Amino acid sequence: MASGTLLYAQSGGVTAVINATASAVIQTARARKVKVLAARNGILGALREELIDTSRESAAAIAALAHTPGGAFGSCRVKLKSLDADRPRYERLLDVLRAHDVRWFLYNGGNDSADTALKVSQLADEYGYPLTCVGVPKTVDNDLAVTDCCPGFGSAAKYTAVSVRECALDVAAMADTSTKVFVYEAMGRHAGWLAAAGGLAGNGPDAAPHLILFPERPYVEADFLRRVQAVVDRVGYCVVVASEGIQTADGRFVADAGGGKDSFGHTQLGGVASFLAGRVKDELKLKVHWTLPDYLQRSARHLASKTDLAQALAVGKAAVDYALKGMNAVMPVITRTSDAPYRWKVEAAPLDRIANHEKKMPKAFIRKDGYGITDAARQYLEPLIRGEAPPPYGRDGLPRYVTLKNILVPARLPAFEG
Amino acid sequence: MASGTLLYAQSGGVTAVINATASAVIQTARARKVKVLAARNGILGALREELIDTSRESAAAIAALAHTPGGAFGSCRVKLKSLDADRPRYERLLDVLRAHDVRWFLYNGGNDSADTALKVSQLADEYGYPLTCVGVPKTVDNDLAVTDCCPGFGSAAKYTAVSVRECALDVAAMADTSTKVFVYEAMGRHAGWLAAAGGLAGNGPDAAPHLILFPERPYVEADFLRRVQAVVDRVGYCVVVASEGIQTADGRFVADAGGGKDSFGHTQLGGVASFLAGRVKDELKLKVHWTLPDYLQRSARHLASKTDLAQALAVGKAAVDYALKGMNAVMPVITRTSDAPYRWKVEAAPLDRIANHEKKMPKAFIRKDGYGITDAARQYLEPLIRGEAPPPYGRDGLPRYVTLKNILVPARLPAFEG
Repeated sequence: MASGTLLYAQSGGVTAVINATASAVIQTARARKVKVLAARNGILGALREELIDTSRESAAAIAALAHTPGGAFGSCRVKLKSLDADRPRYERLLDVLRAHDVRWFLYNGGNDSADTALKVSQLADEYGYPLTCVGVPKTVDNDLAVTDCCPGFGSAAKYTAVSVRECALDVAAMADTSTKVFVYEAMGRHAGWLAAAGGLAGNGPDAAPHLILFPERPYVEADFLRRVQAVVDRVGYCVVVASEGIQTADGRFVADAGGGKDSFGHTQLGGVASFLAGRVKDELKLKVHWTLPDYLQRSARHLASKTDLAQALAVGKAAVDYALKGMNAVMPVITRTSDAPYRWKVEAAPLDRIANHEKKMPKAFIRKDGYGITDAARQYLEPLIRGEAPPPYGRDGLPRYVTLKNILVPARLPAFEG
Repeated sequence: MASGTLLYAQSGGVTAVINATASAVIQTARARKVKVLAARNGILGALREELIDTSRESAAAIAALAHTPGGAFGSCRVKLKSLDADRPRYERLLDVLRAHDVRWFLYNGGNDSADTALKVSQLADEYGYPLTCVGVPKTVDNDLAVTDCCPGFGSAAKYTAVSVRECALDVAAMADTSTKVFVYEAMGRHAGWLAAAGGLAGNGPDAAPHLILFPERPYVEADFLRRVQAVVDRVGYCVVVASEGIQTADGRFVADAGGGKDSFGHTQLGGVASFLAGRVKDELKLKVHWTLPDYLQRSARHLASKTDLAQALAVGKAAVDYALKGMNAVMPVITRTSDAPYRWKVEAAPLDRIANHEKKMPKAFIRKDGYGITDAARQYLEPLIRGEAPPPYGRDGLPRYVTLKNILVPARLPAFEG
């Protein structure tokens, strides 16, 4: 095997299975005698030359990453701008890569990270530095182009479907004398993928969730409230799944409609579920409960989808394979080859087809009335939440999640202020 | 076996395992050839003479109740008043019991339900109607007297500890450039049991959760904010678990401090986590996320504690045993006989020692500084979340929760307006 180092970094919001990808990357590289460094806190660690020596971690610890949520090396929310606008940072990045003999750079993230990996590869090319850049897909938002689905989404989708089913049973039991409307807020600022996954909790006109609000359709309050009342009249209670990204017809985010001050002048943090619950209470005078799972939905490794885990591992392995083959500026993507039985494979796609694109839900996935998912959506979504992959539990009743040592290699360059 | 019917009813907020108790009740009674009716929507079904014929359900369906959350027959939030103040309703209840030859009444709930079961037994005695009343414990709040713990609590506690551990890993990965403070809101209006369970997620001064806010201690905002900042400075991020019931020193619920109007004059629904997050944002200028799991925490059968499940089944079986032995006005309670190894047994306790009492957390369970749990609390709590008892999953990736037919027996009395 060629000498040189592989640098791996995590980017953006973490998921229940991004560490599974990391685990596969490191295990695959180790099997091929390639040294792996991991940037601390994503691209920032690369800029700051804070590079974790993964060879200091035991084989057991690296294996345990596959069942540990969060981002084991730290992630970041930093988007590099264009090569021209951010040239000093790109050049610093190249300096750090060069200083540590990095020949393969794997960036595990979403659209922005694909863009960064692409630009780094262009810069390396410009400077004649031999570097292979591979993007590795990850996002609970499921909004990456080209790939059929994104590692991380399936587990968040499973969490959503199971949680909606469970709380719906609760509300059904209480509705006669207590809560009649329940609102579940799902992540998804621009696309309703996770809200749609909530639809897997039930099927049929009277099954929960009874109404789903998608960012792809305008929020029309009078229509929404009329439908809630109609469901309560017919079924006895109403479970609503709302995407955090729903907007009114004039393009304002409903989540921003609150944002007021409380009676003491303090900032009121709300969100969509809180807002909708308030409208139901004010206008329909119905007892309402609501939930904002927030980070729980993307870190619930205890409820990971086995399909999702397998794909997270597969893209990690493929990324190393591609890198070591010198396949530059690509990303391993999931290609669905069959719906029933569900079959998929990993293929290489050029980063420039993925960077900065955003995949919306197909129109055919949203029911004509705008408040539910279609059979086509079920056919797409259902395989992604299939199978269970629970973590091992300790005697204390808690999952055995691993914490790495994360020992940095000594810096070889002066500090960078950028 | 004596002829006659057993009536079972569920009351108050449901849990992940109250149906397991129902499953054990029906299975135990069936084995002894006793007919079981279940009141629809708790005591209301008994008053309305809406009685479900459980013999119409298959053995498989009754077995599946043991892994199905919610309340399979419906529950209710109705508290009967004193015998004098609510005599017409108590007498109607007795009429319905008599009309269906009910000789054993099992009421599955919390303090209020124990009180109702006690009063029904007193009334039956007064009228010379041969009836054995048994209370069956259930509550995620863990606030029943006499019993060491309450079925339902262990599973909600496990959900809380696992969820806090998972979201803490998420925040740790994001803190460098994004979320620095995370607030998790736990149920518990009067006692901090579930918030305390969040403390099981980690141990040691730098482990999440870094701060726990209990209803047993006054909320002092300046002190809280100072501590949040100190943890962020020291650890890099801060995870807070807050009980929904925290109060200021003058006895006002913090959750009610919001309750304002948004900029459009709409009601703002908030809660404790939302409020605390707003204070952190306003005063410390730190990026903050928060979660309100709400019903998810008490319906998460997918994450049930095996200990809790075993206890929920055991009290169901014991309740039938006690009833058929004619042990009147008692409740099967959990007695802890050993901490290490954890051992417990079920014993009968008189309802009048349980009705209307409320068990607070012992002072010795809260750390001296007021922001964490002690080793004594860990020793008490840890066995209750021990062991996993996942439901079976279908090919669709969802738990196989059962829905009963819930067929009513024909009414024998005129309708009751009460």
